[in-house]
Amino acid sequence: MSKIVTYEVNVMFGDCDPAGIVFFPNFLKWMDASSHHFFVKCGLPPFRTLEKTHGIIGHPLLEINTRFFRPATYGESLQIQTSVQEWREKVFIQLHVVKRGHDILCEGTETRTFVTKHPDDPTKIKSIPIPEDVMRLCS
Amino acid sequence: MSKIVTYEVNVMFGDCDPAGIVFFPNFLKWMDASSHHFFVKCGLPPFRTLEKTHGIIGHPLLEINTRFFRPATYGESLQIQTSVQEWREKVFIQLHVVKRGHDILCEGTETRTFVTKHPDDPTKIKSIPIPEDVMRLCS
Amino acid sequence: MSKIVTYEVNVMFGDCDPAGIVFFPNFLKWMDASSHHFFVKCGLPPFRTLEKTHGIIGHPLLEINTRFFRPATYGESLQIQTSVQEWREKVFIQLHVVKRGHDILCEGTETRTFVTKHPDDPTKIKSIPIPEDVMRLCS
Amino acid sequence: MSKIVTYEVNVMFGDCDPAGIVFFPNFLKWMDASSHHFFVKCGLPPFRTLEKTHGIIGHPLLEINTRFFRPATYGESLQIQTSVQEWREKVFIQLHVVKRGHDILCEGTETRTFVTKHPDDPTKIKSIPIPEDVMRLCS
Repeated sequence: MSKIVTYEVNVMFGDCDPAGIVFFPNFLKWMDASSHHFFVKCGLPPFRTLEKTHGIIGHPLLEINTRFFRPATYGESLQIQTSVQEWREKVFIQLHVVKRGHDILCEGTETRTFVTKHPDDPTKIKSIPIPEDVMRLCS
Repeated sequence: MSKIVTYEVNVMFGDCDPAGIVFFPNFLKWMDASSHHFFVKCGLPPFRTLEKTHGIIGHPLLEINTRFFRPATYGESLQIQTSVQEWREKVFIQLHVVKRGHDILCEGTETRTFVTKHPDDPTKIKSIPIPEDVMRLCS
Repeated sequence: MSKIVTYEVNVMFGDCDPAGIVFFPNFLKWMDASSHHFFVKCGLPPFRTLEKTHGIIGHPLLEINTRFFRPATYGESLQIQTSVQEWREKVFIQLHVVKRGHDILCEGTETRTFVTKHPDDPTKIKSIPIPEDVMRLCS
Repeated sequence: MSKIVTYEVNVMFGDCDPAGIVFFPNFLKWMDASSHHFFVKCGLPPFRTLEKTHGIIGHPLLEINTRFFRPATYGESLQIQTSVQEWREKVFIQLHVVKRGHDILCEGTETRTFVTKHPDDPTKIKSIPIPEDVMRLCS
């Protein structure tokens, strides 16, 4: 079982495109922010600390699948409900449900992995097995 | 059969995150740019003209599915190869393959629809059947 | 005298660049958001309503002058204190002070004007004198 | 005397706001990109290499002053002409002139400094005198 953490977004004029609706990559930026926010609220330290304790420098995306049901516009408040749907050995799947009150605007999963700098080449990154303590904190 | 149109991106410092790699929503921003670029190169006028001729104000996303294989960083040149994989009655599926030379960095499909302002409420939008002339130009 | 309205920002991982600090155009995006937020909190309706009542479609920037004193990074909460420094006939100057608790991170003025669609060419925009009721609401 | 290097931008749909014109922080993002592009074209290596050779991790902004004369919209090609207006001991002033053909859309200066990680606290940054070889390459 995963915790569910809500991240709040206030849509601004500059988040919208000439059609007057949210430019969709902003939804994915907010999902990314909500993914980070989820781990912080579960008690994980920021990546700059995780780098020192676990060598972890980020949790990049491997795959994203998102469906968009309703547009949003500036002046609106959105709530993103984020949880972990599944932990695998090296990857985990986060679910983000973006709501405006009772309406679901979009819904998507992100497949992510925790990475360290590659031991042989620090300009590259390397997936690691999901740390036990990270999983425990999020449950 | 669809045309394949290539959109070129030069990755900048500000496109990258503290891990030193492209912040992923930027890939989706570039896919969106490549989607627009595709239609322009196929001969479609910009949306501000399409609004006058077809009432079309945009082609919002209904669904996005993307897999990320390799990170990219600033100073690199990327090529996005965009085509239409399928035309349905009211939606179409665009395929974007993001390459750095021969390497595929990420690959994704976008399900989109052409929209007009809703006849009953101009603050809302409405899907329309894909215009014949649009399909013809892209083939 | 102008009201002073505070806009809160939570800095996210994706707002930061490879140096690990906020990519500076994000400060200007937040100042823009704070400029909009200021008018909303003063009681102005959103631009989509102002377009109907006053013909106003936005308040674009004519000039920006900003000094950056301290960097910020993800996980931090910032407060932007926004006010109107001066009303002239067709332009006004907004002051934004970005703070992290007691520290001032950056400080800048924006010179803006309210615009309508140009009567002769709706693809162009046109400055208008600042409406009396707008000034009154902000004081 | 400084070199003048031109950076080309193709304005995309998603760069524009509900008023249909470029959302202004994008101009500053492009000026930042042009600032980086300038140094690359002058022969400076990317920051990830400069970190190894000079300890330099970036060239953050201390001050920005920009005037906006004309809006731009999607489908347009812009040219940013970038040069160094002045070298001081620890700071330099870059001038960016954003043009659309013969029209100047906006014009601004950026005051920047080269920074290293702070020797006493690697989470902080520190200004350094402008390296001789950097100045030589840009002249």
